[in-house]
Amino acid sequence: MIAPIGREIRLARRPQGDPKITDFEVAEATPAPPPGAGQVQLKVRWISVDPMIRIFIDARPLGGAGNPLPIGSVVPGPALAEVIASEHPDFMVGDHVEGRIGWREFATVQPAGLRKVDPAHGALSAQLGVLGLPGFSAYVGLGLLGDLGPGKSLLISGAGGAVGSVAGPLAKLRGARTIGIAGGEARCRALVDELGYDVALDRRAADFPERLAEAAGAGFDAYFENVGGDIFDLALPHLRRGGQVVICGLMAQYGGGGEAATDRLPATLLTIMRQGLTVRAFSNTEHRGLLAPFHAEVGALLATGKLPSPEHVAEGFEATPDAFCRLFTHSVLGKSLVRVA
Amino acid sequence: MIAPIGREIRLARRPQGDPKITDFEVAEATPAPPPGAGQVQLKVRWISVDPMIRIFIDARPLGGAGNPLPIGSVVPGPALAEVIASEHPDFMVGDHVEGRIGWREFATVQPAGLRKVDPAHGALSAQLGVLGLPGFSAYVGLGLLGDLGPGKSLLISGAGGAVGSVAGPLAKLRGARTIGIAGGEARCRALVDELGYDVALDRRAADFPERLAEAAGAGFDAYFENVGGDIFDLALPHLRRGGQVVICGLMAQYGGGGEAATDRLPATLLTIMRQGLTVRAFSNTEHRGLLAPFHAEVGALLATGKLPSPEHVAEGFEATPDAFCRLFTHSVLGKSLVRVA
Repeated sequence: MIAPIGREIRLARRPQGDPKITDFEVAEATPAPPPGAGQVQLKVRWISVDPMIRIFIDARPLGGAGNPLPIGSVVPGPALAEVIASEHPDFMVGDHVEGRIGWREFATVQPAGLRKVDPAHGALSAQLGVLGLPGFSAYVGLGLLGDLGPGKSLLISGAGGAVGSVAGPLAKLRGARTIGIAGGEARCRALVDELGYDVALDRRAADFPERLAEAAGAGFDAYFENVGGDIFDLALPHLRRGGQVVICGLMAQYGGGGEAATDRLPATLLTIMRQGLTVRAFSNTEHRGLLAPFHAEVGALLATGKLPSPEHVAEGFEATPDAFCRLFTHSVLGKSLVRVA
Repeated sequence: MIAPIGREIRLARRPQGDPKITDFEVAEATPAPPPGAGQVQLKVRWISVDPMIRIFIDARPLGGAGNPLPIGSVVPGPALAEVIASEHPDFMVGDHVEGRIGWREFATVQPAGLRKVDPAHGALSAQLGVLGLPGFSAYVGLGLLGDLGPGKSLLISGAGGAVGSVAGPLAKLRGARTIGIAGGEARCRALVDELGYDVALDRRAADFPERLAEAAGAGFDAYFENVGGDIFDLALPHLRRGGQVVICGLMAQYGGGGEAATDRLPATLLTIMRQGLTVRAFSNTEHRGLLAPFHAEVGALLATGKLPSPEHVAEGFEATPDAFCRLFTHSVLGKSLVRVA
């Protein structure tokens, strides 16, 4: 039994707006103790950097009910780890687990919230991306949008992000016409060339509103929202009557702000009413029953090379804060990960 | 065959904000001609005044797609009429029909959009209220809110209006705890005493936000929205996680305006996402299949006196504009109607 001394990344200050590297501190951790009864000792192999973490560390955390994460706490976030010691009958040394382990190199925990992953089911990193929470969010969100088969059109914002890069290709495979929104020309080319979107719209282009209207034609059947703010406001009126909207993420709003000069709420409500729209958010935890069909369908598509799964990998534990902050300032195609040395 | 000369009410000018009586003009109509093949000639008996008409006469009409109603047109609105001549095999002299006949005393029309009503099924006026569009909207909206049986709580804005006065009692009969929002103390007393609401909240009271929070407890399961604007903004955060919202009407917004000093859209979207809410609007025409069960359930409740059906009746065709405008400035309990002399 060993008590390895690793590093951890703490919240050094509460981010204002987009997170900055100085909001975090890489520090030596207290040693992860040998596992007690029912516990496992973990060595982290991969860290998932995800925009949603911005909400976990916000002054108003997810759900709005809990207290903010105290300054000095380890940043909570999904990671993939190897079991290096176990006092739990279901976990053996050498097993791999995925869950909200946090930004640290070693951890000793109760494995209740962890999911055992089988390396035979694909690359370990994919368990944090296309086969992990982002992929599952894409799968659940698409399911809530109803029938998206041939003849239907789906608008996706954040189309090249960790969720969008699964949602778009998956909807396309099911027969829908997919219209992706992303930032910048290069990114938009990648949406079409690497992810197979039918149309890519550059939200930074001056003629974005006109191109959005053109792509909408008689109206999008569905809209998969990952960004929020101005994009949502521009997109909503382009839904067809009875259109379906799912809010999976609001990346543009996690840092607060994003307000326009005028109150857009009344007009948004009128649009929802006039067009008979449904705007729905969801929690993955309420759809656990879909985990098996998700792994079956998406796992098979991935194994047969039908589903792209772009990744952006940063090297080394200490690269985590930078990799996280870049999510908000740089366009990264697919899932962003840190390979822990 | 006669061509009766009656009156009609025309849109005299486009309303700005709440409609004013001077926005309308009562004028002699061209005679309603004898019915041609497939037509019926109608004498209007009851006119339904409904906040939704404000949208039909707006510069941006319902749906957002059509052109605005031209100035000088007869105001479109639901009415109940008697057939006084018929060249249609399905309609006989003496039959009663309900539909978007408009604000006029006589009309000669194709009856395609009209619904024949049976006076044996209750008072004719109820066919425009609890058994008409408002009642059906309440029924459809409640159905979209999912299970609202015992142990569930339902918040209703515009709780004493034509729709709310059906939705509240109907949900209560199904076992839900009903919390109604209305304007003024007298109105709130009527919500409890006449409509059976468990709790009534006066939106004009200084402590309305605190009383709303108190009534919410751990969160409302569902929210039936008839008003919009500030009420929606205050109510939404009080939904429980996974709560359901149906937007049936936005009466406070039909005249435009209602904007706050700051942009409330980003915060609204975050609330929807954080709490995993569903916000849904609907069109009655997409739920025609529910007309039979609606008439069966609500008709029986009405016939056995289990469902209240308060009405506010104005007398005389020429009273229509005033009755309509008062909807926006006075609190009327239940359905507002005009009895055409």
